[in-house]
Amino acid sequence: MSKGLLIVVSGPSGAGKGTICAEYCKRHPEVFLSVSATTRSPRPGEQDGVHYFFYSKEEFKGMIENNELLEWAQYCENFYGTPKKYVEQALNEGRDVILEIEVQGALNVQSRFAGGTYVFVLPPDPDVLADRLRGRQTETEEVVQKRLSRAMEELPLMSHYDYVLENDQLEEAVNDLERIVRAEKMSRPRRIEDLEQIWKIKE
Amino acid sequence: MSKGLLIVVSGPSGAGKGTICAEYCKRHPEVFLSVSATTRSPRPGEQDGVHYFFYSKEEFKGMIENNELLEWAQYCENFYGTPKKYVEQALNEGRDVILEIEVQGALNVQSRFAGGTYVFVLPPDPDVLADRLRGRQTETEEVVQKRLSRAMEELPLMSHYDYVLENDQLEEAVNDLERIVRAEKMSRPRRIEDLEQIWKIKE
Repeated sequence: MSKGLLIVVSGPSGAGKGTICAEYCKRHPEVFLSVSATTRSPRPGEQDGVHYFFYSKEEFKGMIENNELLEWAQYCENFYGTPKKYVEQALNEGRDVILEIEVQGALNVQSRFAGGTYVFVLPPDPDVLADRLRGRQTETEEVVQKRLSRAMEELPLMSHYDYVLENDQLEEAVNDLERIVRAEKMSRPRRIEDLEQIWKIKE
Repeated sequence: MSKGLLIVVSGPSGAGKGTICAEYCKRHPEVFLSVSATTRSPRPGEQDGVHYFFYSKEEFKGMIENNELLEWAQYCENFYGTPKKYVEQALNEGRDVILEIEVQGALNVQSRFAGGTYVFVLPPDPDVLADRLRGRQTETEEVVQKRLSRAMEELPLMSHYDYVLENDQLEEAVNDLERIVRAEKMSRPRRIEDLEQIWKIKE
């Protein structure tokens, strides 16, 4: 059985990566959506183990020391990371895995995983990004400005990604993510082993 | 305006690449389907300038000498090639171009064009390929066997392609080609120039 595809969906805060991933997983219940660990406080409505695993800073530092994280990063005074165990297990079972993580975390995964697919999500333009950050209404204007300037700093890192997904309309953005995944599964390096067997190809 | 995408669709004789390309162009009339030049005889129903430009061997050799072909190859005693002019014109106008050509011809294009997308079309397995070659009923069993063994020789060349498109059901194969094209258009190297302008990204 061939391994699952690791799909890393990232982009600046406010790009809409969380919504896209949630909708993608609704359409594809067989996909494993990795749940991140964080030390930040839950926002209204967020549930432990569903949106994030919420940890204290002391607990999080323990996971780092025990090498239980695929990647981790510090961002706005909080820690974010990806528990390693479940991701590897799902991939080995042949399930695709979606990681929705912030920009630096994605690059850390890249240095550890060969063959993942890296998708950078962006709103159509900077004004839309600002509007979306404000529309959330859970942050003060100061936090919005901090996130905006952070976003602009993160943009050059998109050069390390495979795809840029413009998130204008949610439905179409999810369609686009589906197209990326399907295309990756047709990529020759991914198909070649199976095909060599079916067609008995000799070098 | 950004240039169009060069989509090179190839694969062994009988893989169904012609049918896929025709159906793709029906769905996307804005795409330019390059018409090949050949010296082989027209099959029943084939029209000059639609399915192929039919030339004599002398005429074809003249085009080679005048550097009017993007690629050319000899196959089963006949010449096949791609007139250069129309392809370059369409790409410069921002139109996507589909080249449906045989396997060696595609590799010759690859050596001249940077940035094209190379799709290798295959039936699900060798038995289906043999059935399809026979089903055409325009060839003798000797020609079928010649094409079959040629197909098996060509398979290792798939290692030079970007994607392998399994042609089981036509409708789904065309959907898959659409997904490949869309994914390529979201690929970061292709998007980066536009995005640097929209987002004023500094290095």
